[in-house]
Amino acid sequence: MAKIKVVDYLIKQLNKLGIEEIFGLPGDYNFEIVEAVERNKNVNWIGSTNELNAGYSADGYARIKGYGAIITTYGVGELSAMNAIAGSMAENIPVVKIVGMPKVQDIKNKKMLHHNLDNANYFAFMNAYSNIVEAYSMLDKNNAKEEIDRLINVLIKTKKPVYVAIPIDVCSVEIEDNSKIEYPTSDKNNLDIVVNKIIEKINKSNKPMLLADILTYRFGAKDELNAFLAKTNIPSCAFVRGMDIISSDMKNYLAVFAGKIDNQICYDYLNNSDCIIASGVVISDLNTMGFSHGFDLDNHINIQSNFCKIEGVKYENVLIKDVFEKLKEKINYTSNVNLERTFKYALPPCADDTKLSVKYIYPRLNEFLKEDDILLTEVGLVPFGVMPMTLAKNMSVQNQILWGSIGWATPCAQGCAMAAKNKRTILVTGDGSHQLTAQEVSTMMRNKIRPIIFVINNSGYTVERILCEDIDAKYNDIAAWNYSLLPKVFKGDCFVASAKTNKEFDEVLKIVEKEQKSRMCYIELFTDYLDIPFLARAIAVHPERIK
Amino acid sequence: MAKIKVVDYLIKQLNKLGIEEIFGLPGDYNFEIVEAVERNKNVNWIGSTNELNAGYSADGYARIKGYGAIITTYGVGELSAMNAIAGSMAENIPVVKIVGMPKVQDIKNKKMLHHNLDNANYFAFMNAYSNIVEAYSMLDKNNAKEEIDRLINVLIKTKKPVYVAIPIDVCSVEIEDNSKIEYPTSDKNNLDIVVNKIIEKINKSNKPMLLADILTYRFGAKDELNAFLAKTNIPSCAFVRGMDIISSDMKNYLAVFAGKIDNQICYDYLNNSDCIIASGVVISDLNTMGFSHGFDLDNHINIQSNFCKIEGVKYENVLIKDVFEKLKEKINYTSNVNLERTFKYALPPCADDTKLSVKYIYPRLNEFLKEDDILLTEVGLVPFGVMPMTLAKNMSVQNQILWGSIGWATPCAQGCAMAAKNKRTILVTGDGSHQLTAQEVSTMMRNKIRPIIFVINNSGYTVERILCEDIDAKYNDIAAWNYSLLPKVFKGDCFVASAKTNKEFDEVLKIVEKEQKSRMCYIELFTDYLDIPFLARAIAVHPERIK
Repeated sequence: MAKIKVVDYLIKQLNKLGIEEIFGLPGDYNFEIVEAVERNKNVNWIGSTNELNAGYSADGYARIKGYGAIITTYGVGELSAMNAIAGSMAENIPVVKIVGMPKVQDIKNKKMLHHNLDNANYFAFMNAYSNIVEAYSMLDKNNAKEEIDRLINVLIKTKKPVYVAIPIDVCSVEIEDNSKIEYPTSDKNNLDIVVNKIIEKINKSNKPMLLADILTYRFGAKDELNAFLAKTNIPSCAFVRGMDIISSDMKNYLAVFAGKIDNQICYDYLNNSDCIIASGVVISDLNTMGFSHGFDLDNHINIQSNFCKIEGVKYENVLIKDVFEKLKEKINYTSNVNLERTFKYALPPCADDTKLSVKYIYPRLNEFLKEDDILLTEVGLVPFGVMPMTLAKNMSVQNQILWGSIGWATPCAQGCAMAAKNKRTILVTGDGSHQLTAQEVSTMMRNKIRPIIFVINNSGYTVERILCEDIDAKYNDIAAWNYSLLPKVFKGDCFVASAKTNKEFDEVLKIVEKEQKSRMCYIELFTDYLDIPFLARAIAVHPERIK
Repeated sequence: MAKIKVVDYLIKQLNKLGIEEIFGLPGDYNFEIVEAVERNKNVNWIGSTNELNAGYSADGYARIKGYGAIITTYGVGELSAMNAIAGSMAENIPVVKIVGMPKVQDIKNKKMLHHNLDNANYFAFMNAYSNIVEAYSMLDKNNAKEEIDRLINVLIKTKKPVYVAIPIDVCSVEIEDNSKIEYPTSDKNNLDIVVNKIIEKINKSNKPMLLADILTYRFGAKDELNAFLAKTNIPSCAFVRGMDIISSDMKNYLAVFAGKIDNQICYDYLNNSDCIIASGVVISDLNTMGFSHGFDLDNHINIQSNFCKIEGVKYENVLIKDVFEKLKEKINYTSNVNLERTFKYALPPCADDTKLSVKYIYPRLNEFLKEDDILLTEVGLVPFGVMPMTLAKNMSVQNQILWGSIGWATPCAQGCAMAAKNKRTILVTGDGSHQLTAQEVSTMMRNKIRPIIFVINNSGYTVERILCEDIDAKYNDIAAWNYSLLPKVFKGDCFVASAKTNKEFDEVLKIVEKEQKSRMCYIELFTDYLDIPFLARAIAVHPERIK
């Protein structure tokens, strides 16, 4: 059997999963790991400006490519990335967190090396991570092969982050080069039962309706779900986290669910349905517009990643992908309803000298979108502005509705753009969020990727303002930056512009269409202090105080 | 008994410890806490650009003021600050980490609110923190008062970080306004024994020598130690973490310990001593120049924060401050040796057109230092450049020798400058480190504090280059920024300059002397790719490859 170094084996396995770029920062405990990346001709090292950003970039990369990885040093590096990895955990993104650490003997002797707490407990940081990852391990020379295989199998099965710490002297240990990646499969019996029961329920139903959400995509069942819908014409809608799953041109696709007030037709259709087919749905506050969804999943069909609940009865080991594939194959049902999309932006108004507002930005941006675009929506108000958009074919919309960490989207856009170099990556962020992680724009420039970045400058944490008793609370102000100067600091090639009126925005977008083909675009959009997408009124403490 | 809201009580207690500024970011789970800061007339809210930076700023503030505090939101905010808090733990800095979180009932019901993992385990992040703080608590309406008191007592006693999470609806619970802060005291018996034994050993010794280190300062014994030295003239030296503890004009002060090769006289004096009086010493790799100190503390007098070991025998509950106070009072000993400082920068050479190098920067900077200055030395090469400096009276030098998190110094400088508005705060950082946290410069400008910032632009992670087998490894390169433009992005009032030759640096420093009185100064210094302080050769893997 051929032998291979532990680190080379790990990087090779990651590459087998489709990983071609790994993010991180070098440090004296991880040189051996970074060098394994450099040795592997199929994988590139992407140096990030800090570890939190590296983690967000790996998250973005995994959202597009399926899997992502980040390498940091022990202690200082890994803890800085913790929020990003927890975000991947919450949002079901399979990221491998790799940490280089001191030698085995130094760990055993609790040698007081740098990057330690003053008790030199070498397990403290892995213990911290154990709370926010699906599986974790500190490798030694005996368990390295088997532990790497175990972690990668967990990664594939759960689509959640795993953590691996590698002492310097374990990196070069030689192990057998025989991969043991296991892809999960469905229990055939249960799969048959589930599919038959679902078909039976649909056939008996007066008003079946499909509700799509994010885990459908994460567990690779997007195409199968769409094929099922195309065959059956069953009316459908999506929660915001999964707003890009159902093709916008799908017959009887109603809308993104937006609560009772803003999208009554969709709400009624769902709540009058005697057979909701829920696909990869997550019930959480913002995903359901404040738990305003109405229905109880336990009365319906709840298809999850690897199990299915039908009227509350659980069937284990049925993969969501297989369920839809088999459903499509076996079902003989065509809905004869004819529904229109209920909730979408009208064409933007004429571009005039009106002061720029989200009322113009989002409809106009919608018009700008093209097939295959990746749209990054920063945490806060942006998802509310994007929800009514009609997506172009095969578009991807990325958000972080559950975890909700401001600052996530800028480095995440870097990862997305890196993972899909031939697509347009469009980032919409607010000034408040952008300040947290703005330096990652320099990594984009350095690597010559060409996202289109829109920074909505509304002078502060506007989402916090509307969530606050005191809408004018000073603590929601931020430092006023000259964002347009930022790309100059980073010295790369970039088209920079700003807009203060509808017309200016319109003109800038026309230039961006061309400029984006050869270089990054960085656009600052000035809007009012309390200018919010209309859907965001639903979360405002004092909606009456917003214009 | 007067009643007070939980959050108001907490902020009032922090203010009693001297805290007048609290750092952090607002979020919808912590508004009630931030508002308590705003309500308290003695405490200011300082909005940071991100949570890691807020944590570093609180660390800097505590280094100068004695205590610091940071407020973040649940999950996303707190995890981003984790590296900073772990750094405070490693470096023995008492920082209170305050987290706002959802309501008690939501926690109990595991309600799927945003900023959660997808299992809504509300204890996950506190459990993560439990690995890196001295004490922690999630308040409820019954335990709030007693838990706040407990945490603050731990903070005072151990000078280490504590963590407190406050559910929204616990914030306004009314509790009794009777503080129970307990300051630790020495066991009088043990104190007498220890002091007598130390005096006895000194009197019997041929060559007593005092070795000062950081915990002397952290536990408030700096003045007492200096008074003891001034009375006895005992020869002294310091480890780098505590390089500012002994007054540079102290008679018989030898140097900062710098290993055998670079400071043989100091090494020999220590290792020939039959009575080393070690004060607050931490034995760790970089503090001892790679464990090159020689002696074994267990053969000497090891005075720690609240215990003392004499020739290996431990005496509990004797406070370092009391030990030196009593020693000075009781001892009747005067050393008659007459030693010169062994290791210091000569006056800088004449400022000519030579390409700027650390060989000029550090001696010239030494000349620039004034009484009361606070000098921040970023992790990496800077401490090696600063070690040979002769400090001005009452100067403070801040470093992070044990934890060693690059990026720490910029936000830390913000905290230091905020804590000491009438002193000069001087930050020396490298380009690699600065990129991680550079946006905190905007918080400085926004708050009109006036640090002097020197960014040494040597095109990458130079400290990593010299620690690496491959000194030219590409992964130690970073994006080339135009640092001088950065203050313009942040729009504040700032004197900006750069220097490429000795002469230019000399001229810039003369201007800075004046400019600093009215505004911040931000200076970019260009040096060579592998230009390192001579002491840093000791940690280089291939010193022969460095010019």
